Amino acid sequence: MLYLIGLGLSHESDITVRGLEIVKKCSRVYLEAYTSILMAADISSLESFYGRPVILADRELVETGSDVILKNAKEEEDVAFLVVGDPFGATTHTDLVIRARELEIPVEVIHNASVMNAVGACGLQLYQFGQTISLVFFTDSWKPDSFYNKIMENRKIGLHTLILLDIKVKEQSIENMARGRLIYEPPRYMDIATACKQLIEIEELRGEQAYTENTPCVAVSRLGSPTQKFKAGTLKELSEYDSGEPLHTLVMLGRQVHDLELEYLYQFVDNKEKFKKDVEQDQEFFKPPPYVPPEENFSD
Amino acid sequence: MLYLIGLGLSHESDITVRGLEIVKKCSRVYLEAYTSILMAADISSLESFYGRPVILADRELVETGSDVILKNAKEEEDVAFLVVGDPFGATTHTDLVIRARELEIPVEVIHNASVMNAVGACGLQLYQFGQTISLVFFTDSWKPDSFYNKIMENRKIGLHTLILLDIKVKEQSIENMARGRLIYEPPRYMDIATACKQLIEIEELRGEQAYTENTPCVAVSRLGSPTQKFKAGTLKELSEYDSGEPLHTLVMLGRQVHDLELEYLYQFVDNKEKFKKDVEQDQEFFKPPPYVPPEENFSD
Repeated sequence: MLYLIGLGLSHESDITVRGLEIVKKCSRVYLEAYTSILMAADISSLESFYGRPVILADRELVETGSDVILKNAKEEEDVAFLVVGDPFGATTHTDLVIRARELEIPVEVIHNASVMNAVGACGLQLYQFGQTISLVFFTDSWKPDSFYNKIMENRKIGLHTLILLDIKVKEQSIENMARGRLIYEPPRYMDIATACKQLIEIEELRGEQAYTENTPCVAVSRLGSPTQKFKAGTLKELSEYDSGEPLHTLVMLGRQVHDLELEYLYQFVDNKEKFKKDVEQDQEFFKPPPYVPPEENFSD
Repeated sequence: MLYLIGLGLSHESDITVRGLEIVKKCSRVYLEAYTSILMAADISSLESFYGRPVILADRELVETGSDVILKNAKEEEDVAFLVVGDPFGATTHTDLVIRARELEIPVEVIHNASVMNAVGACGLQLYQFGQTISLVFFTDSWKPDSFYNKIMENRKIGLHTLILLDIKVKEQSIENMARGRLIYEPPRYMDIATACKQLIEIEELRGEQAYTENTPCVAVSRLGSPTQKFKAGTLKELSEYDSGEPLHTLVMLGRQVHDLELEYLYQFVDNKEKFKKDVEQDQEFFKPPPYVPPEENFSD
């Protein structure tokens, strides 16, 4: 049997009771360690919490060595594959399930919280979110902006946008890659200021006002960890915000901001009146035309 | 301290290890029991799992008696408020947090899986979902259809729609309510066939082809429970589907169906070739016009 087990967001003890019971009985335990990180735990604290060894699964192992992970899982052995958040947060894990099914290995999933639902803690209602986008680190020559149209689509219909920020773990520099040297760069996690600057840069390039530097956003830092922090402000304001340790996520507000949402966000702003004004002003973008009653016919 | 603790989707043991530790140390434990249910547990199995009494919190208590729940939580006592899924799945709980903050009661949230992220288990990618809608039980005189425009908005930009189905717990009949009799109707949970029939009914009334009876959907039944089941088919096909015990959720596909998503869905269909054709045919709706290269000027 293959168990895909979500670890939640931060602590060792964010695993579910059922998940922990399964980890303890599996013969091999893998930890997927390149699409996200647990903020208040590492592999050795997990090993001591579980009372058993944990094997780090990097991108190579998961994407090309899945048969190693799945070895003997059809009948003889139970294998646990641990994923930060929920197992269906990344396409990679869907691949692993499809491969297991091809090999007729039964699969069970133990769900957990992920940023996709826990972001509700910022006070914005989950059912008001549109499609989720990802923002990668720009380089001098590579500034992919396909997210821009998606933000535009969301905001045209009034919805909030969850913006996932780039994580670079175990990446090689181009030079080391070219020379075949297995030397890895230190991990990098995009912070809020970088994300906001990149968003403003693309708006300046495209100029279609999918958003402006005055569009209100919520910075979500270390969600679910003991040092979790929210900060609401405009893109411009947050481009100068020191968001501290990773991980971070950004939410861009849509036009449909309910009173209850706004009330909740006030606790995260510097200036309540200014923020309220910023929200009202931003609601002018993509505003549907006012209702015009059908003209009555007095012609006769 | 007020702790909002997510219980996940199904088993007593779907609570996180950290959540369980907190439940054990709190002086009062409330279970919110009207916006959802745990599928493989009830209040007495929870009490024996936690080793302590659990107080059922119905709508009246949560919406009008929040000060009873929050009593002494500022300094003397720790209070746990248990919520099926994740605590931020319903606006009700946001209200409770705002009330606690007004009373200067510290609040901590223990997140867990909810349908909003666990629905990824059907194989459709979460970042491709648009806004979430809710479908209530129609009566002869009340068929609210505000969801229709939202599905249209999602599908115009190619996105999937998560459709939450009505749950009626502790509801009074109009007659009993009028006579002031505290007699409650048996709980009702909308099944897949009813949901699909209601969707088709509204499409026939509105006729704007936000979707058709041939639009592909995924029926998600008992998500996260031991009897979890997925079934993919057209709205028409699923309107005759026997989905079994509750709870159910429906996903309507958008135009942007990736190969990996389709590959995953095939395991849930009766006829792979037919389903593939249905998906392709449905993609014709809201299809962007084909690219036309700018006309070259040969006039001179």
